[in-house]
Amino acid sequence: MTATVHTLSTSRAPSLDALMALVASDMNGVNSVILERMQSKVALIPELAGHLIAGGGKRMRPMLTLASASLLGYPGTRHHKLAAAVEFIHTATLLHDDVVDGSGMRRGKRTANLIWGNPASVLVGDFLFSRAFELMVEDGSLKVLKILSHASAVIAEGEVDQLTAQRRIETDEDQYLDIISAKTAALFAAACRVSPVVAEASEEAELALECYGRNLGIAFQLSDDVIDYASDTETMGKGVGDDFRDGKMTLPVILAYARGDQDDRAFWRAAIGGERVSDDDLAHATELLRQTDALADTIERARQYARRAIDALAMFPASKAKAALTEAAEFAVARAY
Amino acid sequence: MTATVHTLSTSRAPSLDALMALVASDMNGVNSVILERMQSKVALIPELAGHLIAGGGKRMRPMLTLASASLLGYPGTRHHKLAAAVEFIHTATLLHDDVVDGSGMRRGKRTANLIWGNPASVLVGDFLFSRAFELMVEDGSLKVLKILSHASAVIAEGEVDQLTAQRRIETDEDQYLDIISAKTAALFAAACRVSPVVAEASEEAELALECYGRNLGIAFQLSDDVIDYASDTETMGKGVGDDFRDGKMTLPVILAYARGDQDDRAFWRAAIGGERVSDDDLAHATELLRQTDALADTIERARQYARRAIDALAMFPASKAKAALTEAAEFAVARAY
Repeated sequence: MTATVHTLSTSRAPSLDALMALVASDMNGVNSVILERMQSKVALIPELAGHLIAGGGKRMRPMLTLASASLLGYPGTRHHKLAAAVEFIHTATLLHDDVVDGSGMRRGKRTANLIWGNPASVLVGDFLFSRAFELMVEDGSLKVLKILSHASAVIAEGEVDQLTAQRRIETDEDQYLDIISAKTAALFAAACRVSPVVAEASEEAELALECYGRNLGIAFQLSDDVIDYASDTETMGKGVGDDFRDGKMTLPVILAYARGDQDDRAFWRAAIGGERVSDDDLAHATELLRQTDALADTIERARQYARRAIDALAMFPASKAKAALTEAAEFAVARAY
Repeated sequence: MTATVHTLSTSRAPSLDALMALVASDMNGVNSVILERMQSKVALIPELAGHLIAGGGKRMRPMLTLASASLLGYPGTRHHKLAAAVEFIHTATLLHDDVVDGSGMRRGKRTANLIWGNPASVLVGDFLFSRAFELMVEDGSLKVLKILSHASAVIAEGEVDQLTAQRRIETDEDQYLDIISAKTAALFAAACRVSPVVAEASEEAELALECYGRNLGIAFQLSDDVIDYASDTETMGKGVGDDFRDGKMTLPVILAYARGDQDDRAFWRAAIGGERVSDDDLAHATELLRQTDALADTIERARQYARRAIDALAMFPASKAKAALTEAAEFAVARAY
């Protein structure tokens, strides 16, 4: 096959390449902080934390902190510590999530709880969470501390809320959006908001970037929900159908249940109740999701949130950072199909 | 029996009565903050948190914050929020501890993890921990935030360290003191240190109160270790012999193992390895602890730490607060025999 010489930029699939290139140099600084501050004289801490932290995550949230600073032309490095703090908070929640869900695979590797046990994952998560606050305190901005301590409380609330909704077929779209706004989007929003604070940008810029992050987080979560049914283990890095087998109410299921006939609803009730866990059941579920356009419409919902994220950036002049953040929002949706 | 008219104060057993009376009025303020700030629109959070928070704990750490403020003549109420934050951090670690240890009883009640499951306990612990930081941020002292975020990281480190030492018969006295200095004494020390910060007392007063708290914490932990072998469920509020059955290396076991003959050591190795969990095994363990004076000498060690705690108060003039803190240190030891 001959290479096309003049590819239009719009013809290629959106990716995170521009975002990664934009923040590459700053990310070295963030990675240094992460590696240095996950150390402890207790050897199990860096061993377990390193498994997850070095384990192929995208560093999506720190990238957002760095790109937001770049968007504002912030020349300093204070945000490196804060981006590391955000990643520590995220890592702590992943460690605890995997305990809560009893997950065995994450980012294509065995989970920490499977290797070192639930107790170690709980306690190392607590350590990383405390260390995140130490990093923020070292930075010394009470405003940043307020943003991130509040986000942390909201995340935990969202996680408990989701736990309560688990295996509850009655969970509706609004309730679900509340849950993911808290458990996923709050940290995306906070990651974007800390940079205007350290850059001493306007309140308007702060709110715009928070709005970008919040909507981007929802778009990412909704496309994750689709990928869990539509992808394979290699792409996803975790087992496909995990949400299904865990009885998780996600938007595709909520739509398919609402739109299904009596038989379909009986199936979903049993499935979410934990009585349908075979591969055949998963195949049937995926078929119902397609028949009812639940996957396509979840992607469409994700696209709306991505658009809102992009619109939130309207006040900022064109720049590499703005282009990279825009493409990240497109990527959040495009990766699901 | 006729009441003795002139009881010498030295003739009665030390108690926390003076401390409780000293802080009673302030504690109402702290309890209001606790009750108000453990609320959430997610009903499971106040339900689960309330089970433990309202469940008969002594509020030892908040009492220390309040008594330290009283010692310094601090007239304000800023420390109410901080005392509540300290109690939230403590409650979060208890929730996670019970998950880590698989405990079924705490303060004479079924544990939260037994009633609501491990996932809920992990996540509500995370919420309380985040809420603690929100309270501190509202207070606005970066110095207090530094003290408590560092203490939290040290606690988590100590917990992981203890997890590593669990079922390791080789753990020695120094290692064990490192563990309890981190997992127990760090929060006692921080609880005492925040008050001189808000009272704007001297650095010397800060360090003296921290020293008091740290040594008091060690004394409490060592007497807890004795009580776990020497008490009954009613006194302790948890099952006697829990440490034994969990294979926990505590100072009594460390001393008994070091002093035992070949047969005794073989027994302890098997017991700590999890192969001796019957009531007869516990009775034999307790007998070995008595034969080797391990319980009496652990109490003696605790007494030394309590004396150091009392000596740390030397710089403060006589007051009700000083007398109450002194008696609390005596109580820490006396409750174990």
